[in-house]
Amino acid sequence: MKILIIGAAGMLGQKLTRALIAKRTLCETSISGLMLADVVAPKEPHFDGSVESSAADLSQPGVAEALISRRPDVIFHLAAVVSGEAEADFEKGYRVNLDGTRALFEAIRNAPAPYCPKVVFTSSIVVFGSPLPDVISDDQCLTPQTSYGTQKAMCELLLADYSRRGILDGIGIRLPTITIRPGVPNKAASGFFSSILREPLIGLPANLPVEKTVRHWFASPRAAVSFLVHAAELDTARLGTRRTLTMPGLAASVEDQIAALGRYAGGGAVDLISQERDEDVARIISGWPRSFDARRAQDLGFKAENSFDEIIRVHVEDELAGGAQADMPIADMRKRL
Amino acid sequence: MKILIIGAAGMLGQKLTRALIAKRTLCETSISGLMLADVVAPKEPHFDGSVESSAADLSQPGVAEALISRRPDVIFHLAAVVSGEAEADFEKGYRVNLDGTRALFEAIRNAPAPYCPKVVFTSSIVVFGSPLPDVISDDQCLTPQTSYGTQKAMCELLLADYSRRGILDGIGIRLPTITIRPGVPNKAASGFFSSILREPLIGLPANLPVEKTVRHWFASPRAAVSFLVHAAELDTARLGTRRTLTMPGLAASVEDQIAALGRYAGGGAVDLISQERDEDVARIISGWPRSFDARRAQDLGFKAENSFDEIIRVHVEDELAGGAQADMPIADMRKRL
Repeated sequence: MKILIIGAAGMLGQKLTRALIAKRTLCETSISGLMLADVVAPKEPHFDGSVESSAADLSQPGVAEALISRRPDVIFHLAAVVSGEAEADFEKGYRVNLDGTRALFEAIRNAPAPYCPKVVFTSSIVVFGSPLPDVISDDQCLTPQTSYGTQKAMCELLLADYSRRGILDGIGIRLPTITIRPGVPNKAASGFFSSILREPLIGLPANLPVEKTVRHWFASPRAAVSFLVHAAELDTARLGTRRTLTMPGLAASVEDQIAALGRYAGGGAVDLISQERDEDVARIISGWPRSFDARRAQDLGFKAENSFDEIIRVHVEDELAGGAQADMPIADMRKRL
Repeated sequence: MKILIIGAAGMLGQKLTRALIAKRTLCETSISGLMLADVVAPKEPHFDGSVESSAADLSQPGVAEALISRRPDVIFHLAAVVSGEAEADFEKGYRVNLDGTRALFEAIRNAPAPYCPKVVFTSSIVVFGSPLPDVISDDQCLTPQTSYGTQKAMCELLLADYSRRGILDGIGIRLPTITIRPGVPNKAASGFFSSILREPLIGLPANLPVEKTVRHWFASPRAAVSFLVHAAELDTARLGTRRTLTMPGLAASVEDQIAALGRYAGGGAVDLISQERDEDVARIISGWPRSFDARRAQDLGFKAENSFDEIIRVHVEDELAGGAQADMPIADMRKRL
């Protein structure tokens, strides 16, 4: 079992790599080789089997062909220009997110037969845009309101068509907003959903730029990794012709987040959250999906957290306990902040 | 008002050209120039203003740029590799239907500012595939089951994103199955819907390859041309962020078709229809949409026929009356058949 992870240097890519190494098998077959690619070469992890790490931009000629030349059995395609950048740089967004993905699928189509790898593609809930119902069903039509969402929706369609034709065995998963992201604050509009918990948990202040009544759809990084692994192991015959699934998550308000923080870390932690409104962030967030009925994915065995208490516990275990899974010891994190 | 029609040599393109010449204005502005393009150069019609006709394959480098170099105010983009061919020739389908459309949109994006033409794009109801409800709403999610449907769905998404960014002013229209198509029988799976009426109307036999209970969604060629013109004249501010509309049509069974034929031409005409089942055609048809609730388009003023009696009358007036609109005099048609 050879596995290729494209986008392996990102937060999820790193966690997926570690999870696969710990698990040692995928689809009940021992993992013999890991190929890790990203725009900057991912750090090579310690692994008994073969590991290859490479710097690769899928949208450049020949790169996709080189990446699949060792014929990986499973390909995780996580690489993307993020939402804000795809909106700011029209050409780069389409080149990387659409053309890069198509180049990968085309390289697979043109590889010597027989070759039909499993391809796990990460899509996003931003393929849906306002006006939206309060609870979004699995049958909601695609109405992206950003170029990033448009590119993801187009790739979902490609994935289905290439799968229908037997060129690859694709499964797309639409990820909820991943919270609590480890590390330091970033400028993503969604960043505060993580920072209002992450910072107070280590005694640091954080700002909430929107009302506490704002609701959104969440899963932990650990849940996201479990989605990826479960997708790779799922028999896609169970998907029928619809190859992309909205992942389960937790519908919660900022109020719910803060209440969970209070229960875990006390009122002192809650007091570290200031509330200075940011009109730009508030406007962006107002168009985002609030809740899903992700029945298809749940029926297929995908599982997310049921409360923010659980999401906080996962964060503490995986990031703050100083164990093998931690991205950064708490002392270093304080230093960086 | 300069107008570019891409795909002008096809059945709809020719009828649209004639309709615009007869109408003389579009959006209450006098039409000064017509640019007609197709893979083979369309025949130049008689027109008081300027007419240019060119052979052009949008998917070839520089072609889209050349086509828009005279800065048409309205672009009708009807050109496509049809469903069967896109399924048989994977590369050609994506090259023409997806890359060709994108090349057009990119040429517009890269044209010297200010330039934001109205773009009327013909999509298709085959962006929807089984399983489908009996009556399909405007909110139905896109589930194409062919490469052609996939390419059309991807272009709908592109059209919306380029419009949202103000690069072009796009409107997509999903056409019903156009019946009665003039001319001679073709090999399209949908061909019999036209031939079981068209041939008996001129005293010729036709075969019905499916059960009479088969239901589908129809509009006449005249209605299709009216959709295109109405789309070009519609204020797209009324569309909101969803730029593609399912066109209204007539939900009818083959039984309804035959009953209307009987009312118009008598039992003798009906007796000209044989019923030899074609398993391939029956299988393809079984996955097609049966009926729509095309409320959005209706509320925006798009109109189709209400009965097959009306569709037959339109066909007789436009094709068999020997008037200025007829594609072919009836005697010639008998000769060709």
